[in-house]
Amino acid sequence: MSISEGGEFGLIGRIVSRLGTSPSTLLGPGDDAAIVRAADGRVVASTDVLVDGRHFRRDWCGPADIGHRAAAANLADIAAMGAVPTALLVALCVPPGVESEWVESLADGLTAEAALVGASVVGGDTTASPTLTIAVTALGDLGGAEPVRRDGAQPGDVLALSGRIGYAAAGLTVLSRGFRTPKKLVEAYRRPAVPYASGPLAARLGATSMIDVSDGLLQDLGHIATASLVAIDVHRDAFDVPDQMRDAAKALGVDPYQWVLAGGDDHPLAATFPPGVALPAGWQVIGAVHDGEGVTVDRKPWTGGLGWDHFR
Amino acid sequence: MSISEGGEFGLIGRIVSRLGTSPSTLLGPGDDAAIVRAADGRVVASTDVLVDGRHFRRDWCGPADIGHRAAAANLADIAAMGAVPTALLVALCVPPGVESEWVESLADGLTAEAALVGASVVGGDTTASPTLTIAVTALGDLGGAEPVRRDGAQPGDVLALSGRIGYAAAGLTVLSRGFRTPKKLVEAYRRPAVPYASGPLAARLGATSMIDVSDGLLQDLGHIATASLVAIDVHRDAFDVPDQMRDAAKALGVDPYQWVLAGGDDHPLAATFPPGVALPAGWQVIGAVHDGEGVTVDRKPWTGGLGWDHFR
Repeated sequence: MSISEGGEFGLIGRIVSRLGTSPSTLLGPGDDAAIVRAADGRVVASTDVLVDGRHFRRDWCGPADIGHRAAAANLADIAAMGAVPTALLVALCVPPGVESEWVESLADGLTAEAALVGASVVGGDTTASPTLTIAVTALGDLGGAEPVRRDGAQPGDVLALSGRIGYAAAGLTVLSRGFRTPKKLVEAYRRPAVPYASGPLAARLGATSMIDVSDGLLQDLGHIATASLVAIDVHRDAFDVPDQMRDAAKALGVDPYQWVLAGGDDHPLAATFPPGVALPAGWQVIGAVHDGEGVTVDRKPWTGGLGWDHFR
Repeated sequence: MSISEGGEFGLIGRIVSRLGTSPSTLLGPGDDAAIVRAADGRVVASTDVLVDGRHFRRDWCGPADIGHRAAAANLADIAAMGAVPTALLVALCVPPGVESEWVESLADGLTAEAALVGASVVGGDTTASPTLTIAVTALGDLGGAEPVRRDGAQPGDVLALSGRIGYAAAGLTVLSRGFRTPKKLVEAYRRPAVPYASGPLAARLGATSMIDVSDGLLQDLGHIATASLVAIDVHRDAFDVPDQMRDAAKALGVDPYQWVLAGGDDHPLAATFPPGVALPAGWQVIGAVHDGEGVTVDRKPWTGGLGWDHFR
């Protein structure tokens, strides 16, 4: 059944019946607004929007994958502040010919990704549109901790990364060249594996700055460098580029470090820590903070692309 | 300058420079997420999306008007829970050829409407898209009060309305027939005048249910009737239909009560109150709650359209 046959309220009813709930949800979908626990007295909030053909392609990702990706992009922003996600709100614009089963699977993907962090979809809006568009707002709770911002990095800090990087960009290149394997890279593009717990952990360890790497490592570190008035140097040899990625890069004629240093969509967390902090498993040192400005790789400018501009 | 010439970060910078701040904003735009005060320990949250050609037309509304409308649609949802809005987050999808001045005026409209309730735009996302789309999430604070939901109306309650109704629908009909006057009706469509303060006031007065009328009074009252398991009767003579609206209706061959009872976009608040509550200025009794189900007008079914379905 297409959405236009079932009408708006039919669709909403079918979506809502698939959404779970969570301990943070005080009032879920179905009223003018949702009510979410904010025990800390502050709420962390972030919005990201995904547009068909630009942030995803329906022939490359199934609807559940797209739901996972849309949720992950937002939940990672909450984690990058050092907070625990509590809820998602979703604005969904759908061409009327789309099957309602497609939308239900999208809702399943959103719900499943949110459940990874104990959150749920508490509200939203649906409408018809020529362009399939998914705007997600994530809310989160700091649990009494101070937020980790972009502007606290200090010269002498170490730069560390939590989560895989380059995999999703490699998978995107694979798909864009018409291939469907290596499966591990393609699946990484379809479903990010975000290290959500690393965000609050970094906050407790005293991280001085943190960011969700969504558009490309060097570009996103540039935001920390600019906000903190420091230079950041990335050590190329610090990255463990797996054989599968090296082989795919060779076959496709690509520098694998372009995926690692400038590729998006994996949503690892990058953070700076005071020197001497013992980093737990899951965090890997990949560089250092210096006096100065800008981002370098082994103290030289990177000559490849830096990352993604959503208007170019 | 078009947006694609300035690039994503140029556009974001120009938008952010126009956003104000508010006492609720603990961390505004520029980091992975915003942080908003939630002193109550709960946060009220709602998302609405507006799509070009469906919820607005750029030849009927200027960009500042569209910003006011997008903000109002969301802020009204917060008020309808009995809460005070604290912040907006905005996801903006813009065709690359749109002028950046257009987007800046849109941001001005969003900012100005939010400022009416002491809130501000604290974050968001921008991207290119073939379809101009504005998804807004509003947050709000209950200030220790219990939320006013849709499911608490009781037989014997009075039904009351705060805010103008029918004006925006009349303005839409005027514009859709190619006219630009009466100015009062057209302006009502372009910029809703939402009675934000009436929401928390109704909560304090003991409202048993409340809703933001966005899609049409009878349709939206149907949500209260369904959720509360009651019947709602609307008294047609309770509405003060101004001469200007009657004259326009006559000239256009329309029943003005179709605008009043089934028109959207004005965002008045409809609420039910226990019998005997003294309603303050700004609230007008327009009907009553009975045993049964469904919504009637003077105890008879309404034979005109009920309201708006976003997929038909």
